[in-house]
Amino acid sequence: MVSLQGRNPAIQPLLAILQAGEDDDVLQINKKMAGKIGLNVTHICLTKGCSEDEIVEELLKLNDDPRVHGVFLHLPSTSLTSRVLNALKPEKDVDGITDLNMGRLVRGDLSNSFVPPIASAVLDLLEKHDAPLEGKTVLLVGGEGPLCLALQCLIERSGMVALKSHWNSNVLQRQVMQADAMVLLDGVNVDVPPSWIRPGAAIICCEPTLETGIPEYIPNLHDCSRWLREQQYRPWRLHSLKLQPLTPVPSDIEISRAQTPKPVTQLAEEIGLLPEELEAYGRNKAKVRLSLLDRLHSQPDGKYVLVAGITPTPLGEGKSTVTIGLVQAMSAHLKHNSFACLRQPSQGPTFGVKGGAAGGGYAQVIPMEEFNLHLTGDIHAITAANNLVAAAIDARMLHEATQSDKALFNRLVPSVNGVRSFSPIQISRLRRLGIFKTDPAALSMQEISTFVRLDLDPSKITWQRVVDTNDRFLRKITVGQASTEKGQIRETGFDIAVASEIMAILALADSLEDMKNRLARMVVGTSRSGQPVTAEDLGVSGALAVLMKDAIKPTLMQTLEGSPVFVHAGPFANIAHGNSSVLADKLALKLVGRDGFVVTEAGFGADIGMEKFFNIKCRASGLRPNVVVLVATVRALKMHGGGPNVSAGAPLPREYIDENLSLVAGGCRSNLKKQIQIAHLFGVPVVVALNVFKTDTQAEIDLVCQIAKECGASDAVPCHHWAQGGRGSVELAKAVDEAANRPSNFQFLYNTEMPIVEKIRTIARKVYGADDVELSPEAKSKIDYYNQQGYGSLPICMAKTHLSLSHMPEKKGAPTGFVLPIRDVRASVGAGFIYPLVGTMSTMPGLPTRPCFYDIDLDPVTEEITGLF
Amino acid sequence: MVSLQGRNPAIQPLLAILQAGEDDDVLQINKKMAGKIGLNVTHICLTKGCSEDEIVEELLKLNDDPRVHGVFLHLPSTSLTSRVLNALKPEKDVDGITDLNMGRLVRGDLSNSFVPPIASAVLDLLEKHDAPLEGKTVLLVGGEGPLCLALQCLIERSGMVALKSHWNSNVLQRQVMQADAMVLLDGVNVDVPPSWIRPGAAIICCEPTLETGIPEYIPNLHDCSRWLREQQYRPWRLHSLKLQPLTPVPSDIEISRAQTPKPVTQLAEEIGLLPEELEAYGRNKAKVRLSLLDRLHSQPDGKYVLVAGITPTPLGEGKSTVTIGLVQAMSAHLKHNSFACLRQPSQGPTFGVKGGAAGGGYAQVIPMEEFNLHLTGDIHAITAANNLVAAAIDARMLHEATQSDKALFNRLVPSVNGVRSFSPIQISRLRRLGIFKTDPAALSMQEISTFVRLDLDPSKITWQRVVDTNDRFLRKITVGQASTEKGQIRETGFDIAVASEIMAILALADSLEDMKNRLARMVVGTSRSGQPVTAEDLGVSGALAVLMKDAIKPTLMQTLEGSPVFVHAGPFANIAHGNSSVLADKLALKLVGRDGFVVTEAGFGADIGMEKFFNIKCRASGLRPNVVVLVATVRALKMHGGGPNVSAGAPLPREYIDENLSLVAGGCRSNLKKQIQIAHLFGVPVVVALNVFKTDTQAEIDLVCQIAKECGASDAVPCHHWAQGGRGSVELAKAVDEAANRPSNFQFLYNTEMPIVEKIRTIARKVYGADDVELSPEAKSKIDYYNQQGYGSLPICMAKTHLSLSHMPEKKGAPTGFVLPIRDVRASVGAGFIYPLVGTMSTMPGLPTRPCFYDIDLDPVTEEITGLF
Repeated sequence: MVSLQGRNPAIQPLLAILQAGEDDDVLQINKKMAGKIGLNVTHICLTKGCSEDEIVEELLKLNDDPRVHGVFLHLPSTSLTSRVLNALKPEKDVDGITDLNMGRLVRGDLSNSFVPPIASAVLDLLEKHDAPLEGKTVLLVGGEGPLCLALQCLIERSGMVALKSHWNSNVLQRQVMQADAMVLLDGVNVDVPPSWIRPGAAIICCEPTLETGIPEYIPNLHDCSRWLREQQYRPWRLHSLKLQPLTPVPSDIEISRAQTPKPVTQLAEEIGLLPEELEAYGRNKAKVRLSLLDRLHSQPDGKYVLVAGITPTPLGEGKSTVTIGLVQAMSAHLKHNSFACLRQPSQGPTFGVKGGAAGGGYAQVIPMEEFNLHLTGDIHAITAANNLVAAAIDARMLHEATQSDKALFNRLVPSVNGVRSFSPIQISRLRRLGIFKTDPAALSMQEISTFVRLDLDPSKITWQRVVDTNDRFLRKITVGQASTEKGQIRETGFDIAVASEIMAILALADSLEDMKNRLARMVVGTSRSGQPVTAEDLGVSGALAVLMKDAIKPTLMQTLEGSPVFVHAGPFANIAHGNSSVLADKLALKLVGRDGFVVTEAGFGADIGMEKFFNIKCRASGLRPNVVVLVATVRALKMHGGGPNVSAGAPLPREYIDENLSLVAGGCRSNLKKQIQIAHLFGVPVVVALNVFKTDTQAEIDLVCQIAKECGASDAVPCHHWAQGGRGSVELAKAVDEAANRPSNFQFLYNTEMPIVEKIRTIARKVYGADDVELSPEAKSKIDYYNQQGYGSLPICMAKTHLSLSHMPEKKGAPTGFVLPIRDVRASVGAGFIYPLVGTMSTMPGLPTRPCFYDIDLDPVTEEITGLF
Repeated sequence: MVSLQGRNPAIQPLLAILQAGEDDDVLQINKKMAGKIGLNVTHICLTKGCSEDEIVEELLKLNDDPRVHGVFLHLPSTSLTSRVLNALKPEKDVDGITDLNMGRLVRGDLSNSFVPPIASAVLDLLEKHDAPLEGKTVLLVGGEGPLCLALQCLIERSGMVALKSHWNSNVLQRQVMQADAMVLLDGVNVDVPPSWIRPGAAIICCEPTLETGIPEYIPNLHDCSRWLREQQYRPWRLHSLKLQPLTPVPSDIEISRAQTPKPVTQLAEEIGLLPEELEAYGRNKAKVRLSLLDRLHSQPDGKYVLVAGITPTPLGEGKSTVTIGLVQAMSAHLKHNSFACLRQPSQGPTFGVKGGAAGGGYAQVIPMEEFNLHLTGDIHAITAANNLVAAAIDARMLHEATQSDKALFNRLVPSVNGVRSFSPIQISRLRRLGIFKTDPAALSMQEISTFVRLDLDPSKITWQRVVDTNDRFLRKITVGQASTEKGQIRETGFDIAVASEIMAILALADSLEDMKNRLARMVVGTSRSGQPVTAEDLGVSGALAVLMKDAIKPTLMQTLEGSPVFVHAGPFANIAHGNSSVLADKLALKLVGRDGFVVTEAGFGADIGMEKFFNIKCRASGLRPNVVVLVATVRALKMHGGGPNVSAGAPLPREYIDENLSLVAGGCRSNLKKQIQIAHLFGVPVVVALNVFKTDTQAEIDLVCQIAKECGASDAVPCHHWAQGGRGSVELAKAVDEAANRPSNFQFLYNTEMPIVEKIRTIARKVYGADDVELSPEAKSKIDYYNQQGYGSLPICMAKTHLSLSHMPEKKGAPTGFVLPIRDVRASVGAGFIYPLVGTMSTMPGLPTRPCFYDIDLDPVTEEITGLF
């Protein structure tokens, strides 16, 4: 016990004793004994004649209470009805009397069942008294119910013969005379004539009184310690789903639909989650509670693997399929605990041109339609929160424009039953304004005016509305044109929902409190006097936290082969930092434990997604990566090596279909080499994963692997997960495993205390290969403003095209000799970064003439979806 | 068996036999026997040496397959590992070998457990051979595992003595000689010398061969028939949550938080849902699958109760609390099966002025914050679907404006690998255009032009975007102002999400197919040549159905006292029909069964919500109401009787606090009387529920009840659910029960084949009390257009103020002598109604100067929400 607590000091085993009536010596004794052996005990006393309903209601609360590890029902046997017994969770049934525990015991599955403590104490006493037990006869007198049956099972399993009798049985004397031991189960102190009893026979009385002192709760400790053991690191007993890849590879939705996922509750159990840490959303998805982090606080983290890519081309690289395939290989084939952490895709592109983002082929998250649509509602929650801020901004400007200070104050701090008081959020604002009064009546007219007027400058509102649809007509709009808005029109626009700062906050927050604080700090615009106006100033930050309280919990799903996947957050990689959430990674690293692997993915090329992963996400989380997997394809490398452009609809040029070693070599020695070097800037080993297409020749594959290793990659491996599933990525998994065991010497690229311009210049030169940066006057004045507002030490989140290492999308390979222009600089104060704009980034995609949705359909009878890819 | 099938012909009991290897005589026999006794059998043959993983995977599929009612594991005992046994759902374990079933058996809970068929067959044989059994000795030889233990239990429970032995035991002879019967459990045919056997002793061999022919599967029938029985009507074993109302009544969120809801899985089981019919969303909410309607197809419906109200005033009536209180009284106090069906509230007003809509006081849906926020994402799904249509409209107009017919055609029907083909949705459009070709190459240039050009008239687009936020600045906006949209600007606006036609469709659809068809029919605007353009023309209707496929399932929650509640759909009652979904009502009516009650609520006053409930919702559903509960308050009646206006913030005039019988009488004899008469127009009995406030005097209460009865109400009852919970509504529940047993003579107010104007006139005169209607020229021409388009026989959904029976909000009581002006007429073709506009209805609420969100906050440690009401 003590040693277990030593390993996991956070755990305070707590036994709840549910009793009817309050005065009970036995329980005093129990409590004292429990105290002696380091067990916390709580008593729940119902009234003496309490109803079944009352007992059940209490049990439901105890089931749900994560602080309670075991429940002992000290109730009269008439109260132990089927309904009562079945209401208690088997894993909290320290007395081993629920049907499930009894069934396990009867079947002999002792490793999983809770043996009734009295029964096992009796066995201990028999053993002490007269071992070996084999062949002995034990008489059980006066017992009924679970305890008696359990005892009978244990006795027979020890090779003894169990006889049963009642006090009024007319064969009692004969049975007593046969018995080597007698167990009096109901504690009735009947006089058995000593002459009946065989010499040396044991008599065990099960009444827990001071005299007999059966150590009733010592066995409970075994139960509690089992519970503790469950929290320590262990290899998972993960049930892998069988995969039988077909040729040719069917469509993604067909592959996904052909596989039956495990119930998410089963997956959760397999990876060591407790039932109370899970919130199922249907059969295939569940949110995982953050309390897990407290429970596994002292568990060492697993290995942390980042999947990044070469600079994207229209030919595709397949970072998501590599991530999923790698985890399928790790868990289903190499039997390592391993977890994939992915971003939630935006629904807009799903119906536009991109299709889904659940991987593809035989490396997918399933069911892919649930991954791609709605999921557990996080993006919808972000949309609601984002747009509540927007509505609050415009409504506030209208109200300030049409009301006097006095009227505003009367409405903002209304008299309720004759009393005026500030809400906590208003007191926060007063403090920030330097007003430390709490009585509304004490404010001067000047203070009232300062307090009630945010005085937002309509031309300096940076907050946009969002919608999770590719709706290009909302890029620039004019609002407030109805007569009810009294001419307060202004120009603004909608972004796609994942571009919201709230999405970036979700991805970077590391607790509910941290998220709430970040939401409060978000700057939505500037007052006419140049002061930043925050969400808290609008009084809306508490409501935002309420809207986001479920979204902060990562969603658990699984791969085609049954490995666990967290899907959580999905900020854009060009205008935000493009990585899935800190919290999902943290939870996964605890769950896989010491020898396990967590594989996460960074958006776009390594110059964008990986750089931000290291400098922003790792800085926020404190986590340190062990390996970078850099994904490349022969086709994309050919384009970086000088291959021709491709255009949608037109046939693919021959260069990309036929063997062309010189184009491949060109791409490897430019873009691939540069991206490897970028990872090495951070001191992290790189494994190159060559995502093989069927047109790739062996010579091309070999060439990529050879050059990659020449360029410093720890290893370079072709992988075939798309066509083969995890089996096709086993070599990659082995290479990653090996690289993860090499010493890693992680370091940030820059210190945040450097001036903003220097941080930008460092990224531009060292990562992009630019000669220098050139800032517009606007960018310079913004930097001055941010320095003055105290945002100078935030990290940098470059908003740059993902299509080139430079700012020029058409420049493939590894461009040099350019100066990076910084058009403007913005700040996401809540998310916690400064983002310089290199060129114009679209934050709202459009729909093409024939969007994907033309092919998407639902069969109303089978409920099957077609056309998603 | 036959009689059970007779009562529920839809059920075909299906037994799945999971076996390793294919050739097996025994299974042939089983199959034949099963066939004889009316059981369908399916064999799943795994390979001979199949792994544990393969078995588990197959079991998971069988668990999930609703067509499979029982699973028999015909597997070698080495394959029956703990993991395999625990993978099988106990309720499908016809062999009774899972731990849970074994535990139940051991504990003696035979009503809930599956007894292993062989064990119960052995008992039958013993009984036939040598009853009575009491005192007999039975020797079990050669057995191990669950069967042996089950048999031992059953034997001992029958008062016999069970002895156990092995073939090689040296006491075998003595035991055989003692035994009255011998059961050979492993089927080994060892020669027992006949001299050992007592005369008349039975020998039962458990090897199921042709010779012994133990009727192994007859007991399965009991299991299957138990399953069938579960589907028949029965009073629920509903666990009521105890309520201990405090005085003064705490805030809604405090009351909600103080109660621990039952896990929704438990509630579902209590009301007869099968596990596979439930999709839990966290611990407290679950979606219910529509397959339930098929399963309970032949079950008679319960009684159908509509809660409506007098004309609303700012003083509140409390229809939701009456609905919830009534169901709490019905289920927790009178022990009737009963269900509340409520609308999902819009999140906009929750953060604006209205607060939550989960009821209030001690009549609430819990947890109220989950009811009020996000729920299971239905409104978010509607928002996404609605806005996808909007994006498709504008993008299409842009593409049509900037491309030739040829270019459009090439993009809409692209060549994929050299082949052009139409998608199914395009073929639908071609058919509607009268083009019956399926080969894209066969279209003439004229046909191509007709096909590719929707030619939407920008000034006649009726589709608006939506957002679930009170964002008044979006009421009227200009979109398309970015340069990328090439000057295609137009004026449009956002409605609040619940005002979307898709919400009305969700509420009225009665199957997935019906919803899909309605979505396809939605008219979004008119072409320049005057043709309606539908969602299907845009190619988006399949995607809409996909987005809405989960939203169509109602969400199960519970009241403060643990009674079931469906929350589903929430169209506005002024511009749409203001009632919760047809599907929730249908599911609930089947679940409560013959003697149960379903209580649903209609928005606003009975003149609006109830009229539409009858004429639109009941027409769509085919359901017939039994009783109307008409909610009134003394305060609101005083206002209808001529009491002074009230204004927010100002103290309440004395008339509403002090006794004033003449104002009360005035309100009763005008508005209350008129609303009772309206219900009687439809032939439905009315019970008046007087929602008592603490300022109401006994004389006022008595007066309301007296006049209500004089006006024809079946009964009139004061109720106190707000302060007391269900106990405070027991009298109301009794009155409703009695009224529901009176003959009801339901009839529609109008025949849909009447001309549109006549339908409008009928509602205006008979329901509102108008002398006549007066149509604007625009309304007249719209009616002509709709007639010409074939929409003339749709029912009418009046868009009228809810604040008066007339079109003049300030006219309380029961105005007469007015002519109802019809400003315009619109059509929701997908939802299926024509809506005449009587005045201007706002479809986007705004935020006040101090919205509710100022007080809403989240404690990041306890995760408790404050400030919601």
